[in-house]
Amino acid sequence: MPKPIHVALIGSKFMGRAHANALSQVAHFFELGLEPVKHVVAGRNAKELAAFARKWGFSTHTTRWQDLARDELVGLVDVCTPNDLHAEPSIAMLEAGKHVACEKPLAGTLKAARAMRDAARKAKKARTFVWYNYRRCPAVALAHQFVEEGRVGRVYHVRATYLQSWGGPATPLLWRFEKGAAGSGAHGDLNAHIVDMARFVTGEEIVDVHGAVARTFIEERVIPGTKKKGKSTVDDAVLFLASLSGGGVASFEATRLAAPHQNANALVLIGEKGSLRFDF
Amino acid sequence: MPKPIHVALIGSKFMGRAHANALSQVAHFFELGLEPVKHVVAGRNAKELAAFARKWGFSTHTTRWQDLARDELVGLVDVCTPNDLHAEPSIAMLEAGKHVACEKPLAGTLKAARAMRDAARKAKKARTFVWYNYRRCPAVALAHQFVEEGRVGRVYHVRATYLQSWGGPATPLLWRFEKGAAGSGAHGDLNAHIVDMARFVTGEEIVDVHGAVARTFIEERVIPGTKKKGKSTVDDAVLFLASLSGGGVASFEATRLAAPHQNANALVLIGEKGSLRFDF
Amino acid sequence: MPKPIHVALIGSKFMGRAHANALSQVAHFFELGLEPVKHVVAGRNAKELAAFARKWGFSTHTTRWQDLARDELVGLVDVCTPNDLHAEPSIAMLEAGKHVACEKPLAGTLKAARAMRDAARKAKKARTFVWYNYRRCPAVALAHQFVEEGRVGRVYHVRATYLQSWGGPATPLLWRFEKGAAGSGAHGDLNAHIVDMARFVTGEEIVDVHGAVARTFIEERVIPGTKKKGKSTVDDAVLFLASLSGGGVASFEATRLAAPHQNANALVLIGEKGSLRFDF
Amino acid sequence: MPKPIHVALIGSKFMGRAHANALSQVAHFFELGLEPVKHVVAGRNAKELAAFARKWGFSTHTTRWQDLARDELVGLVDVCTPNDLHAEPSIAMLEAGKHVACEKPLAGTLKAARAMRDAARKAKKARTFVWYNYRRCPAVALAHQFVEEGRVGRVYHVRATYLQSWGGPATPLLWRFEKGAAGSGAHGDLNAHIVDMARFVTGEEIVDVHGAVARTFIEERVIPGTKKKGKSTVDDAVLFLASLSGGGVASFEATRLAAPHQNANALVLIGEKGSLRFDF
Repeated sequence: MPKPIHVALIGSKFMGRAHANALSQVAHFFELGLEPVKHVVAGRNAKELAAFARKWGFSTHTTRWQDLARDELVGLVDVCTPNDLHAEPSIAMLEAGKHVACEKPLAGTLKAARAMRDAARKAKKARTFVWYNYRRCPAVALAHQFVEEGRVGRVYHVRATYLQSWGGPATPLLWRFEKGAAGSGAHGDLNAHIVDMARFVTGEEIVDVHGAVARTFIEERVIPGTKKKGKSTVDDAVLFLASLSGGGVASFEATRLAAPHQNANALVLIGEKGSLRFDF
Repeated sequence: MPKPIHVALIGSKFMGRAHANALSQVAHFFELGLEPVKHVVAGRNAKELAAFARKWGFSTHTTRWQDLARDELVGLVDVCTPNDLHAEPSIAMLEAGKHVACEKPLAGTLKAARAMRDAARKAKKARTFVWYNYRRCPAVALAHQFVEEGRVGRVYHVRATYLQSWGGPATPLLWRFEKGAAGSGAHGDLNAHIVDMARFVTGEEIVDVHGAVARTFIEERVIPGTKKKGKSTVDDAVLFLASLSGGGVASFEATRLAAPHQNANALVLIGEKGSLRFDF
Repeated sequence: MPKPIHVALIGSKFMGRAHANALSQVAHFFELGLEPVKHVVAGRNAKELAAFARKWGFSTHTTRWQDLARDELVGLVDVCTPNDLHAEPSIAMLEAGKHVACEKPLAGTLKAARAMRDAARKAKKARTFVWYNYRRCPAVALAHQFVEEGRVGRVYHVRATYLQSWGGPATPLLWRFEKGAAGSGAHGDLNAHIVDMARFVTGEEIVDVHGAVARTFIEERVIPGTKKKGKSTVDDAVLFLASLSGGGVASFEATRLAAPHQNANALVLIGEKGSLRFDF
Repeated sequence: MPKPIHVALIGSKFMGRAHANALSQVAHFFELGLEPVKHVVAGRNAKELAAFARKWGFSTHTTRWQDLARDELVGLVDVCTPNDLHAEPSIAMLEAGKHVACEKPLAGTLKAARAMRDAARKAKKARTFVWYNYRRCPAVALAHQFVEEGRVGRVYHVRATYLQSWGGPATPLLWRFEKGAAGSGAHGDLNAHIVDMARFVTGEEIVDVHGAVARTFIEERVIPGTKKKGKSTVDDAVLFLASLSGGGVASFEATRLAAPHQNANALVLIGEKGSLRFDF
C-alpha cells in the first residue's frame, strides 16, 4: 500500500475545485507511489472554505496560508490562486521544505517567474511542477511518444491554436482582464498551454520569435457590481511566430473572441515522415 | 447573342491548359456579355502548340507572342507564363491597346509589379485583372456576400492556410525553386491566393505586418536531367501576421511541405456576429 | 489521332446538359480510342433544341428521335429522358445496330428493365452501359482498386447513404413524384447510385434483402401551374438491409427529406484489414 | 444538507468500477436531494472485494448478496452483474423494499425482463431505473430538450450507429460471446443504448420493425485458458429498420467488428425544421 502524502490546497475557486477533483480521483485510476490525503484547504472566506472542505473531503481549512509552512504533516502544497498570487506562497512553501505544484502560467510577471525558478533551484529536496494539464491528456501523451519514437521525423511545421469565445463585450471586467492580477490575457491563459504542448510533443525548444501581435478588441468592460465601465488592461488575443530548435517553424494563436469555439485547443504537427493532429 | 471577343493565350503548360479549359466552358454555364473565341495560342515549341491548339480548339498558334500586338482581331490577351515573364508581354499588350488578364502572382519582383500597375493605369481603355481564381469559387463568393451583408460584423480574426506537400526532398530543382524565374516559393505561389481571398472576403486591406518567417527546408535539389544538385533559392514555407484595416488580426501560412495535405486552401474568419470557414 | 464516333443525344434537360458537358470535356482530359462528335440532339421542343445545339456544339437537332435509327452516321445513342422513356428508344436503337448508353435507373419498371436487358443481349455488336457516374469519381475508383488489391480483406459492413433535401412540402408535384413517369422516388433516383457503388467497390453482389421500408412523408403536393394539390405516388425515402455475397451486411438509405444535406452521397466499407470512407 | 442514502453495489468488475466512480463523484458536481453513501459491495471473491471496498471507499463487503435484503441501512441496490444475473437480485431486492438500479440491457431473455418489470410494478414504493448512461451525457440531454421545444419539428429520419472493434478473431470466448450469460452480443450491448437514446431524444416509441439482420462473423473463438476453440453463440452485429410513432423511419446498427471505430456511438436525427447530430 502506498504511503500517504498530505496535501495543502491554496485556492478554492475554478482551479481549486479542479485540483480537488484530481486529488479525489487519481488513486482510483492510477497505481501511485504516494497516496494523496486531502489535508487542508486555504483561502480567504472561512465560510466558503468550510463548505468546500466538507464537499471535497478536506480534513480542515484555514484563511492563513502562511501557517501551512509550520504544519509538519503537509508534504505537498498546491497553489491555485490568481496569477499574481503564485509567487509569494510558492516561494514561502519551498523555503519551508514543502513540495510545490503551481497553476499555470507560472507568474504574472517575468520577475516573479524568475524568483520562483530560483527558489525551486535552491530548495534542493523539493519537487516542483507547473500544472500544464494537457500533457496528461492521453492523446497528447501519445503524440509525444510518436515523435519520440521517430515516427514523425524532422518537424517542419507546428500550428497551435487555442480558441475561446467568452470574452465578448457582455463579459464584465473580471480579474482576468486586469493586468495587475492576471499578468496578461489570452496569452498567459491560453498560449501558455499550447506553447507547453508544442515543447512537450516535439521535444524541441523555441529558439526564436519572428513577430507577434497582441490585440484588445474590447477596450472597456462593465465593472462587476456597478454600472460604470473600466479599462481592460490585457490582451484579448495574441498571435506569434517562432522557430523551433530542430529548424521547424511554429505559429501560435490564442484568443478569447473566437465564436463559436468554446474551448478549442488544437495542435497540428507536420513532419518529414508523418503528421499529427490533436483537437481537444 | 453576345458579341465575340478573340482571345490570345500566352503559355500552354499547367496554367495554359487551365485557362483553355475555362475559355471552353464559361459560355456553357454563364450568361456572358462577350463570348470568348479561342483565337491563338503563343508559346515556345511550335509542335507542342499545334497539338495544344487542335486539342483545345484554338484557330492558330505562334512562337512569336510579340506579333499578337499587331493582330487586330485580338481583344484579350491572357498571360500564363512563368512569373518572371509576366511583365514584358503584359505591358507590351497594354501598350498595343489589348485587354490583359495575367496569372498570379502578378510578378516575380516588386519592380516588375509596379511597372505593370503603371502600364495598366496608362492604358485607360484596357481592362485588366489577375487570375485569383478562388474568388470565383462559389463558397468564397458566398462568404464575401455574407460579410458584405453584415452577417459577420466586426472581423476579429482571419486565419488563412494554404498547404501542399509536393516539395519534399525527392522533387527536383524545377523553375519553381529558382528565384530568378519564380520570384519566390510558397509565398508567391500560395500566400498570394490566401492574401487575395482574405482581402476579398473581408473587404478590408492589410495595414500592418507584425512579423514573418520564411524557411527553405530542403536546401539542395537534383537538377533535372542530371545527377548533380543545385541550390533552391526560394522559400518552402512563409508565415506572417498582419493587421486588417478594420482592426482585426490575421495569420497566413503557405507551405509546400505539409503532408498529407495536397492542396488544402482554407480560410477561417471569426467575427463579432458570426464566423465563416472555407475549406477547399 | 482517334477515329470519330458520332453521338446522338436524346433528352436536353438536366441530364442532357450534364452529358453534353461530358462529351465536350472528355477528350481534353483523357486519351481516347474514339473521339466523340456531338452530332445530333433529340427532344420535344424544336426551339429549345436549336438553342441547346448552338450552346453545346451539336451539328443538328430533331424532334423525332425515331429518325436516328436511320442516320448512318450515328454510332452511339445516349438516352437522357425521364425513366419511363428509357426502354423504347434504347431498344429501338439497339435494334438499329447503335451502341446505347442509358441514364440510371435503367427503367421505371422491372418489366421494362428486363426487356432492355434482353434487347442488349440480342444486339451482339452493340456496346451498352448505364450512366452510374460515381464509378468514374476518382475516389470511388480508388476505393474499388484498394478492395481489389486485398487491402480491405473480408468485408464485414457496408453503410451507404444518399441524402438530399429538396423534397420538402414546398416542392411541387414534378414528374419525379409521379410513379408513372419516375417508377419510384428516392429509391430509383438515389439508392440506384449507392447500390451500384456498393457492388462496384466491393466486387460483391447483393444476395439477400432482410427488410425494407419506403415512406412518403409528403403525401400531397401542388400541381405545377395550378393551385390544386395532387397525390405524390412515389417514396420520399427508402431504406433496406442486405447481405453481400462475401458474407457481409449492408444498409442503404436514400431520402429526399434530409436537410441540411443537399447531395450527400456517402459509402463506408468496413473490412477485416482496413476500412474505407467515401463522402462526396 | 441532503439526507444520506446507503447504497449496496452488486458486482465489482467493469460496471462495478464505473458505478463506484459515479457514486464518488455525483455529489461533487450536482445538488442532490439524497447523498449516496458507499455502504457495501457484493461479489464472489472476498479478497478482491476487500481491495475494491478500500479503493472506492465502501464501508464493507460481502459474498452473499442475498443478505442485503435484510440490511435495514440499505436504501438503494445497484445491480452490475452479467446480463443473466440481473433478474434474480433485482427482484429479490424489490421484494425486500429496496430501490433498485440495474445495468442495461435489462435482462438476457424477454421472460426475465418481463418478470423484472412485473416485480417493479408490484413494489409500489420502490424507485427503479436502468442505467442508460448516455441520457445523462449533456449533448444527448440537449438534443432531447431541442426536440421537446419543437425545434426539430416532425421527425423524418433517425440513424443510430454504435460501432466498436474489439470483436476480431483474436478476442477469446469471453462471457460476452455466450448466449447463456449475455443473452445477445452487439444487440443487447450496443443497440440497447441507441434504441434508448432514439426513444429519449425523439420522445417517440418504436411502433414497427421492418426487417433485421444478425450476423456472427467470427464463429469460433479460443476458450480462455485453453488452446481449444468454442462456438460463439451471440451476434457480432445486428442491424434493423423501424418506424417511429410520429411516422418517421429509423435505422439501427450495432457491431463489434467495425475498425477503426473503438466506441463510436452516434445518432443523427433529421426533422422538418432542423436536424441534430450526436457523435460521442
